[in-house]
Amino acid sequence: MLVYLDGAVLPLAEARISPEDRAFLFADGLYEALLARDGRLLFWREHEARLRHGLDALRLPLTDPAGLEGVAERLLAANGLVAGEAVVYLQVSRGAAPRAHAFPEPAVPPTVYATVKPREPHPADRVAKGVPAITVPDDRWARCDVKSTALLANVMAQQAAKEAGAHEALFVRDGVAIEGSHSNLFAVRRDGRLVTYPACNYILEGVTRNEVLRLAGALGVPVELAALPVAELRAAAEVFVTGTTTEVLPVTTVDGRPVGDGLPGPVTRRLREAYLARLDELWPLRAPLAPGA
Amino acid sequence: MLVYLDGAVLPLAEARISPEDRAFLFADGLYEALLARDGRLLFWREHEARLRHGLDALRLPLTDPAGLEGVAERLLAANGLVAGEAVVYLQVSRGAAPRAHAFPEPAVPPTVYATVKPREPHPADRVAKGVPAITVPDDRWARCDVKSTALLANVMAQQAAKEAGAHEALFVRDGVAIEGSHSNLFAVRRDGRLVTYPACNYILEGVTRNEVLRLAGALGVPVELAALPVAELRAAAEVFVTGTTTEVLPVTTVDGRPVGDGLPGPVTRRLREAYLARLDELWPLRAPLAPGA
Repeated sequence: MLVYLDGAVLPLAEARISPEDRAFLFADGLYEALLARDGRLLFWREHEARLRHGLDALRLPLTDPAGLEGVAERLLAANGLVAGEAVVYLQVSRGAAPRAHAFPEPAVPPTVYATVKPREPHPADRVAKGVPAITVPDDRWARCDVKSTALLANVMAQQAAKEAGAHEALFVRDGVAIEGSHSNLFAVRRDGRLVTYPACNYILEGVTRNEVLRLAGALGVPVELAALPVAELRAAAEVFVTGTTTEVLPVTTVDGRPVGDGLPGPVTRRLREAYLARLDELWPLRAPLAPGA
Repeated sequence: MLVYLDGAVLPLAEARISPEDRAFLFADGLYEALLARDGRLLFWREHEARLRHGLDALRLPLTDPAGLEGVAERLLAANGLVAGEAVVYLQVSRGAAPRAHAFPEPAVPPTVYATVKPREPHPADRVAKGVPAITVPDDRWARCDVKSTALLANVMAQQAAKEAGAHEALFVRDGVAIEGSHSNLFAVRRDGRLVTYPACNYILEGVTRNEVLRLAGALGVPVELAALPVAELRAAAEVFVTGTTTEVLPVTTVDGRPVGDGLPGPVTRRLREAYLARLDELWPLRAPLAPGA
């Protein structure tokens, strides 16, 4: 697999960075994960806007974030990933400089790193039956709106989920279920209202989350942007998580207890279908994916 | 300058790591900064214990943390830093593996990186007059007891301090002054009691902090391990910060307002002298440092 590093496209094994890179020493970096279809990026404008939000928040001087779209598409082409779905990873750090907490002065060139790989579709079971989730304390920092590489709390949460046989760990802060370790969280109340945490510093404002909210509006599903206490999560009729590769994925157990009747619910199914239809409408694949893929 | 990377001692410019290193992608790493005198590490046992605490917390499988003492001393010797004071930086990450939040399975070898440099003594003014500090919101995660490379909040805080012309940023959580961006925080109340935050998940339990607490006990300074509301910090008779290279450093303004009479106070001076005397007792330099150094 070829990767992109600071202007060059080269085999991963030959890509090497300095141990003085500030992402390595300080988690002083940002990233985006995107889906591509037939070599083109999905929702690039939205991902670019979120990256710009992070660059502003961290005052990370990347001069041409818009240019990363071309970088990603060039890398997809170099790897022959021009048909079907692929996953793109983009990372930008504040660059390599002698270790000191404050920003390097003068500024050094940011490190830009990108990888691509074929997209692994969900196993059919995962969508048909839904996935288990666990709750974990939200140990993260207070700027979860910034998609930074300071992901150690997410690593520990996802490892806990894996060891519990779960697909996702849901962060709980002050008794409220906020979002997943790598997804946004939605619940459907018994009265049919769709609830998700409001966009603020405690969540990563997902591109898929926002698209699902738009689709819910269009489908007439009442939406509530509100805190969801764990008790209400457990009492919900349906729960699902969203994300770029997660798409819309039903959660059918939380901490080992079934959600609703323990099967993916109708609102989740409807929103999942609407979301996938929206992708097909915006980025129709030249050769449609096999059923179930 | 020669650095250490995964068993090799080599020039920094030749040291290269994989962009798949989990410290680069996830801040999935730990570090320690130590002082050395005449090529020997100070308080190695304490630093090793803290590193082991982090390795346990993160379940990071470094087989021989004790061996890092030899790595550091070998690197000091390789760089000719065998007389006088030097600063040692040690970092361990969970290693390089294809990007996925959960731990690599099977585990991969941890990445071990170390640097050394001559110690820059405090400018005489900094000690004689004390330093300015500012307060900033504590945006950090809830496992500050783990000395991880997830330091982005510390980076932003230290940058804010620098731009305010201050030496340190003091984190405030729920109205309480917790610690500095790279130091522990102490205050002397007007009644003479020395206050610092109790060791818990919200602070990094500094080696210098613990030594200063022991010295305070020996000197008969009453110690209180307690939360210090910002109002009490501002009303304190004395404030100082501690750390491996910070030592014991008086803070004489907070957010632009003088602490006490705006000069380093007697308790701070006494503890600083006792701390430096303790270093000289435990690790006497073959050639004493020049006065003021």
